[in-house]
Amino acid sequence: MDRRSFLKTSAIGGGAAATTALAAPAYAAGHRTLTMVTSWGRGLAGVFDAAMKTADTINAMSDGTLTVEVKAAGELVGAFEVFDAVTSGQADMYHAADYYFINQHPGFAFFTGVPFGMTAQELNNWYYHGNGRALHDELGEIFGLKSFLAGNTGTQAGGWFRKEITGPEDFNGLKFRMPGLGGRVLGEMGASVQNLPGAEVYQALASGAIDGTEWIGPWADEKAGFQEITKFYYTSGMHEPAAGLSVATNLDVFNDLSPAHQAMIESASAYANVWNLSQYMNNNGSALARLQAGGVQVLEFPDSVWSAMFEASKAVYGEFMGDELFKKINDDYFASMDDSSGWITNSESAYRTQRDRVRG
Amino acid sequence: MDRRSFLKTSAIGGGAAATTALAAPAYAAGHRTLTMVTSWGRGLAGVFDAAMKTADTINAMSDGTLTVEVKAAGELVGAFEVFDAVTSGQADMYHAADYYFINQHPGFAFFTGVPFGMTAQELNNWYYHGNGRALHDELGEIFGLKSFLAGNTGTQAGGWFRKEITGPEDFNGLKFRMPGLGGRVLGEMGASVQNLPGAEVYQALASGAIDGTEWIGPWADEKAGFQEITKFYYTSGMHEPAAGLSVATNLDVFNDLSPAHQAMIESASAYANVWNLSQYMNNNGSALARLQAGGVQVLEFPDSVWSAMFEASKAVYGEFMGDELFKKINDDYFASMDDSSGWITNSESAYRTQRDRVRG
Repeated sequence: MDRRSFLKTSAIGGGAAATTALAAPAYAAGHRTLTMVTSWGRGLAGVFDAAMKTADTINAMSDGTLTVEVKAAGELVGAFEVFDAVTSGQADMYHAADYYFINQHPGFAFFTGVPFGMTAQELNNWYYHGNGRALHDELGEIFGLKSFLAGNTGTQAGGWFRKEITGPEDFNGLKFRMPGLGGRVLGEMGASVQNLPGAEVYQALASGAIDGTEWIGPWADEKAGFQEITKFYYTSGMHEPAAGLSVATNLDVFNDLSPAHQAMIESASAYANVWNLSQYMNNNGSALARLQAGGVQVLEFPDSVWSAMFEASKAVYGEFMGDELFKKINDDYFASMDDSSGWITNSESAYRTQRDRVRG
Repeated sequence: MDRRSFLKTSAIGGGAAATTALAAPAYAAGHRTLTMVTSWGRGLAGVFDAAMKTADTINAMSDGTLTVEVKAAGELVGAFEVFDAVTSGQADMYHAADYYFINQHPGFAFFTGVPFGMTAQELNNWYYHGNGRALHDELGEIFGLKSFLAGNTGTQAGGWFRKEITGPEDFNGLKFRMPGLGGRVLGEMGASVQNLPGAEVYQALASGAIDGTEWIGPWADEKAGFQEITKFYYTSGMHEPAAGLSVATNLDVFNDLSPAHQAMIESASAYANVWNLSQYMNNNGSALARLQAGGVQVLEFPDSVWSAMFEASKAVYGEFMGDELFKKINDDYFASMDDSSGWITNSESAYRTQRDRVRG
């Protein structure tokens, strides 16, 4: 990673923020249309739905005074160009997974998911009642963005492979699609890691450009069709224990909105967050059953693979700790996770164990 | 329970709904104030916060065109009188736990929590993407209510006891506070069960009117001060694997609102839902540590107690299955739970096990 790239962008973002402070609010002007660019192909299961849910909720609440128009990947800019489009003012807001932008700043990874990090509930705890949202603001302000969580896929599947994974050495030389810090971990283990937008993964897998891929979970993966090409499916992985999705609005644009419209973006994003996680969780069970019935082998990585991934993850985190803001977010994030995960084990996990036992 | 009581109410509710269909929308009239009565003492940790979060979000988004005024329990009507206040039109909406109203209809239990039922995530799956919300509508229409989930406490603690629970016989003759179907289960096991509003539990426990109580979880329970009286605390229970909170608006009032205002109530409720669950989950860990440091013994019920509770729960469910709507909700609820819980075990639970193992 080129650290200078995000420091340079940082200086530009700072300038934009300073300008904002001087601009007079123009929200008495009436009706307003915002363009939302996304990292998702039109109709891509779950992720595109979360963008639409956010936009539809805002549009319904504003009664025509604020209209969000959603663009799929490629309609205005490419899947990974949405960050630059919004920071430059070409578009007003994006819906994406912030870990696509770790080259802009590695701290963005925490607002999607990081290796051995938070589940969706732990992320929400940190975001809504810990320091998560304030740190998202601090990071976003560098680039002139105002962000809110607006979706979550839940714990992602470990992914699709052409053959069974029996030990960490199986990752050596493997051509695999995985974004974010998780991809860096596989890189440490010898894999040749690529980051491809969702809409391009199937073709890459079919052509042999990649040997395997992770995408989301049974429901979205089945719709993507990976079971037509690969037959070994790992249900759990270290790379995205949750994958938060974000709506990020250009900070000048956001500050220019009325407080009521700002509150609508915040509330609609939170609605999309809980709605989208529930969408995946509601649909994954039956999709997994269909995949199994169709001949897919459903597996878990052996302990040796999990242990090797954890060792590799230490090197990846270490690589970024020299950046002050990354370290600040990292330390707060893991302190919050350690604080909130224990009760979930004591209460919900203990309950689930007993419920499964007595119901047989 | 007097089944006739809710059938009678049903007929009244049906009449109200029919009237609504003839009423012309009056939402061009401008500013509107709605009174929200709640089952919560002012400032009661978490539950009152969820009511305020819903109201504050609506008020911020409506820019003064729709104002929700929140009344604590006792300010306009008592904690358990909110249902009648809203169905009769004395108040416009309530924020409460719907299982307080199982005497109006036992089906309301499913929208808070039922013995050996759904966790918060499973409830959200069913509510936002299964048939949960449609069934909440069907039940609410009988009484002239339009409801949305607007909070959740997560898996509730098994509760506070004066002595250790070593087997199911320890519940025989125990005077215990527990609402909903969970309370009926303890009744089957020989306990003398009372339902008291949150604000009255401490005094009942201190006076010896009850031997023990469940309330919510470490954070809310610590604030209530139960550790000053009892020292045996069970972290997990069968009675409320989640406890959903609801905003219910008088259906005539709701239908008279503009679509934009209706959308605001829906979105603000969903925001309160995810925000409130995260509030409990964020605060419970450190509260439990403080309780332990203060001399509270933190325990789990033995398997024999869980098994006896499960047997007793079958009798309780059986008691209500003659009601067609109860059975309809019950069957759909448990089918959804069975469908969505497997993936959570395969992915998130498997991940948490490995994360805990490698992090040591």
